[in-house]
Amino acid sequence: MMEVVKTHAVHGGTLRYLKHDSQTTGTPMTLSVFVPAGTGPFPVLYWLSGLTCTEDNFTTKAGAYQAAAAHGVIIVAPDTSPRGEGVADDEAYDLGQGAGFYVDATQSPWAPHFKMESYVTGELIEKVEAQFPANGVRGVSGHSMGGHGALTLALKYPHLFTSVSAFAPISSPTRCPWGEKAFTAYLGDDRAEWARHDAALLIEAGAAKGHYDDILVDQGDADSFLENQLKPELLLAAADKAGQKITVRMQPAYDHSYFFMASFMADHVAFHAARLKA
Amino acid sequence: MMEVVKTHAVHGGTLRYLKHDSQTTGTPMTLSVFVPAGTGPFPVLYWLSGLTCTEDNFTTKAGAYQAAAAHGVIIVAPDTSPRGEGVADDEAYDLGQGAGFYVDATQSPWAPHFKMESYVTGELIEKVEAQFPANGVRGVSGHSMGGHGALTLALKYPHLFTSVSAFAPISSPTRCPWGEKAFTAYLGDDRAEWARHDAALLIEAGAAKGHYDDILVDQGDADSFLENQLKPELLLAAADKAGQKITVRMQPAYDHSYFFMASFMADHVAFHAARLKA
Repeated sequence: MMEVVKTHAVHGGTLRYLKHDSQTTGTPMTLSVFVPAGTGPFPVLYWLSGLTCTEDNFTTKAGAYQAAAAHGVIIVAPDTSPRGEGVADDEAYDLGQGAGFYVDATQSPWAPHFKMESYVTGELIEKVEAQFPANGVRGVSGHSMGGHGALTLALKYPHLFTSVSAFAPISSPTRCPWGEKAFTAYLGDDRAEWARHDAALLIEAGAAKGHYDDILVDQGDADSFLENQLKPELLLAAADKAGQKITVRMQPAYDHSYFFMASFMADHVAFHAARLKA
Repeated sequence: MMEVVKTHAVHGGTLRYLKHDSQTTGTPMTLSVFVPAGTGPFPVLYWLSGLTCTEDNFTTKAGAYQAAAAHGVIIVAPDTSPRGEGVADDEAYDLGQGAGFYVDATQSPWAPHFKMESYVTGELIEKVEAQFPANGVRGVSGHSMGGHGALTLALKYPHLFTSVSAFAPISSPTRCPWGEKAFTAYLGDDRAEWARHDAALLIEAGAAKGHYDDILVDQGDADSFLENQLKPELLLAAADKAGQKITVRMQPAYDHSYFFMASFMADHVAFHAARLKA
């Protein structure tokens, strides 16, 4: 059982901050879990946050729990990386602690603890769904680096997930500075290995073809990372080529912040609920 | 004009963080202002935050802007005190910077800058309503220390406000440790002066009698400050004695956090909108 660190009532349900010793990362890991009122069992939406975030940013700022309560969906928000004194780090905000990129690192000094792909798709799901009233039906969403995480994990593990969406995702990490830097550090120089963790390239290669009836992406057109890092046009081109339906909504005047996400979060929860409860 | 520090689109409207040199406090002051889509003019809801908060806590965590957008209400959230190097402070979280208590201090070392009552009821309203499309109709709400601020300013300045509500307010600062400490420091030992800033005593004395058709108060019954600091029963007793209608909703399992406020914020915005737009 994961340790409950704090509990709050919110929107008729119960929000818990949790902590556990992870066998996957070899570190303590933190997360939050919102469970709606009632006995369930409920489907679960996994939320993957962006660079610099812990589980707390989404939990306090995204305003997701009203919709989750209304639809009867559990929401799980893990931290974005292993952390602590014995864990490798970098001074930059976009590498190391707070920047796990939802891959399993193979390179030094990251390989011992940076196993976020295995953590999210394995131990996190197992531990959460053993402790809370989950029905085994799952969606995944996330923001920016976590949007990349949501898309790539959904495409690589379609047996785990029924629905996927993203806010301002890194669409193709092999073709933007954030991704090139992180993948070089975590995965080394072999670009064939990189391609296995690139949402646009995975879609283009037909990953999970036919499994997801649609993928919802919201993107602010005033997002300062849009052109250089996020590049949703690469998702659209890949989806067009592969015959994967994807709905990319360009939202006028919205930026990269939680204010943007909070504005459209209810739409995403409804998008997932429609598929998780179908 | 106040300087716009940051702008975010949110829920179809525009959120601005602002900064200005205050003649009232003699310091720079910060605030946030949400303006719904459209040309207005709109009524304005002033939000007063609690101990330790800046304008940012409400702005990022309260989830108020969806309801404000739906009802067409501007929301203004000022900082809770003057701040900076030349400003008196105390190591404790409940006195000094972040703890202005919405009174004008008369005692040393607080008197030069701690003028939050005059600031909120004068310069803040003037500056906001000169710069944004306000129609001169106002409500006031707040949390904890800011709930005390909302209630006392509404009762003392009924010509300024049309509606008032509060979350977990300090109901009677003359009868709780937070209030006794702050009022001794800011106002001195004269308890007759204290009574002028005590919501329960003001209601009991008939302040603003007949002006507010109802006062909405939400209070979590799992709030750790409930019995020792907040004491909503003193508001109820005073209202009963004076014939002032007040609706105190005890919310089962809710605590003192922004998760509690976010859960009932839409109700408060609707309560104000019904009166501000009547």
